[in-house]
Amino acid sequence: MAFSVTILGNSSAKPTPTAHPSAQVVNLNEQYYLVDAGEGVQRQLIRRGINPLRLRAVFISHLHGDHCFGLFPLIATLGLEGKRTPLDIYAPAPMGEILEFHRRYFWEDLPYEVRWHEIRTTEHRLLMENNTLEVWSIPLRHRVPTAGFHFKEKQPGLNVDKFKITKYGLSIAQITAAKRGEDVVMDSGEIIPNAELTYIPYPARSYAYLSDTNYSAKAAELVRGVDLLYHEATYGIKEEMWAKGRGHATTIEAAKVALKAEAQRLIIGHFSSRYKSHDDLVEECRTIFPNTDVAREGSTFTIEERR
Amino acid sequence: MAFSVTILGNSSAKPTPTAHPSAQVVNLNEQYYLVDAGEGVQRQLIRRGINPLRLRAVFISHLHGDHCFGLFPLIATLGLEGKRTPLDIYAPAPMGEILEFHRRYFWEDLPYEVRWHEIRTTEHRLLMENNTLEVWSIPLRHRVPTAGFHFKEKQPGLNVDKFKITKYGLSIAQITAAKRGEDVVMDSGEIIPNAELTYIPYPARSYAYLSDTNYSAKAAELVRGVDLLYHEATYGIKEEMWAKGRGHATTIEAAKVALKAEAQRLIIGHFSSRYKSHDDLVEECRTIFPNTDVAREGSTFTIEERR
Repeated sequence: MAFSVTILGNSSAKPTPTAHPSAQVVNLNEQYYLVDAGEGVQRQLIRRGINPLRLRAVFISHLHGDHCFGLFPLIATLGLEGKRTPLDIYAPAPMGEILEFHRRYFWEDLPYEVRWHEIRTTEHRLLMENNTLEVWSIPLRHRVPTAGFHFKEKQPGLNVDKFKITKYGLSIAQITAAKRGEDVVMDSGEIIPNAELTYIPYPARSYAYLSDTNYSAKAAELVRGVDLLYHEATYGIKEEMWAKGRGHATTIEAAKVALKAEAQRLIIGHFSSRYKSHDDLVEECRTIFPNTDVAREGSTFTIEERR
Repeated sequence: MAFSVTILGNSSAKPTPTAHPSAQVVNLNEQYYLVDAGEGVQRQLIRRGINPLRLRAVFISHLHGDHCFGLFPLIATLGLEGKRTPLDIYAPAPMGEILEFHRRYFWEDLPYEVRWHEIRTTEHRLLMENNTLEVWSIPLRHRVPTAGFHFKEKQPGLNVDKFKITKYGLSIAQITAAKRGEDVVMDSGEIIPNAELTYIPYPARSYAYLSDTNYSAKAAELVRGVDLLYHEATYGIKEEMWAKGRGHATTIEAAKVALKAEAQRLIIGHFSSRYKSHDDLVEECRTIFPNTDVAREGSTFTIEERR
């Protein structure tokens, strides 16, 4: 099942000639979730071949303009595109007031419902759930109320071992029962424990988005074991004081979170516009957490099934 | 003296992979004026080598999102860039309320003043004036209150004919008096009429932006003699009914306005996203007004001095 993240923008605060502000798309099984929505996000979606009508939900970490100014034109365009199903938006307050304002001044005839779900940014809570996915809020430490997001694939369904099917001559009904996790009763009365017949095809995967934030050991704990971690690294180690004062993290802090979380892989972004190249930043991270890469605009990071 | 228009975006309603919504920059003598501000305008400015801090004023034709959603992130960025001088914004009501809303939710610590000047869109009025320029509002016919803009260079200062300087042996003081438009009194008592000594170096130039609008003969009258006319041509002639119903103009109507206004040159834009190429649209215009071109994104149109 596909599980990937496409970076639509990774610059902090203001855009540069080559970079858009924060936005990315999580794809789980061809269901798309937008994470933050900096200016230009609708064009970025189209450029990356993602039809904005396919978005299932939008998650906004906090209400700084560089994380949400692209949401309002996107909502307008979805109306022009004929969207009829509701759009769920998960964001901290006062997003409700902000959406109401836009409805009054810009979207009077929007043909679909925009549903805001409030994120309480001090709480670790289940925000959204469906057959394949849970999305949890992760409290972060920024200048305004901010939440990270933990996308957790649900445990994939049990597979039944082909050799056991042959060995026991299982019927379709018995295979179906085993897939549901039940023990199987043979005609002889013998009970075959489910664990002998089935296996989990691969461990459930997860992705975490932690931006914008100071270093947070608590956030690292909450996403422990994450497969892919996006952590902001607005500043390099030399600018540690800037990072502290502004509610941001350095490269080293991002790497420490990845290490503490026992992440498989780290990608960094939300770079200050002062950095023309991000090579040094990623090298700083690698001194602590070797499996680090830059979350380059346009890149897609796939979370493989581990078998 | 430089007088040019750079197109930052020319798509209507929603952006496409290759085009941004309405925005352009007028440059008169290296003073820059933004006309409309669709999403992404700040990146478009930077990409075209124009420092947003150099903008003297912003003119917004109407309050549809595709003409103003880029203004709010631009204002935020100017704050981050350390702007201290006021930014003048000319726009119809309720822009004041919209700016106030953004101030409350997004710009609490903006280090400069944003000054809104209301455009009464039913009136032909002088909006702004300085040493070199007047900007007038042009009433347009759209679904919401909308104004076009007429950028009129002021009459350039008089030049004194070099041959006359030699012929009469004019002193610096006499030349200065002639430049001010005065007659010159010679030592002999002879009076040389100003008209004999001076000439206007070139006729004052002008640019008009008419978008979004149905065909308007009145608008054409108000910009009569314009050097460069940007007129929306959202639709081709086959989509005339769409244009009428939605407050837009066709190619043919844009060309008729240019003809009626006795414009020197027409550029068309604000194209519906249904057109993959604009070649046919410009050809439709040329059947009526041959000197027509597409206002292509990234293009700069220079208004030459006519000598």
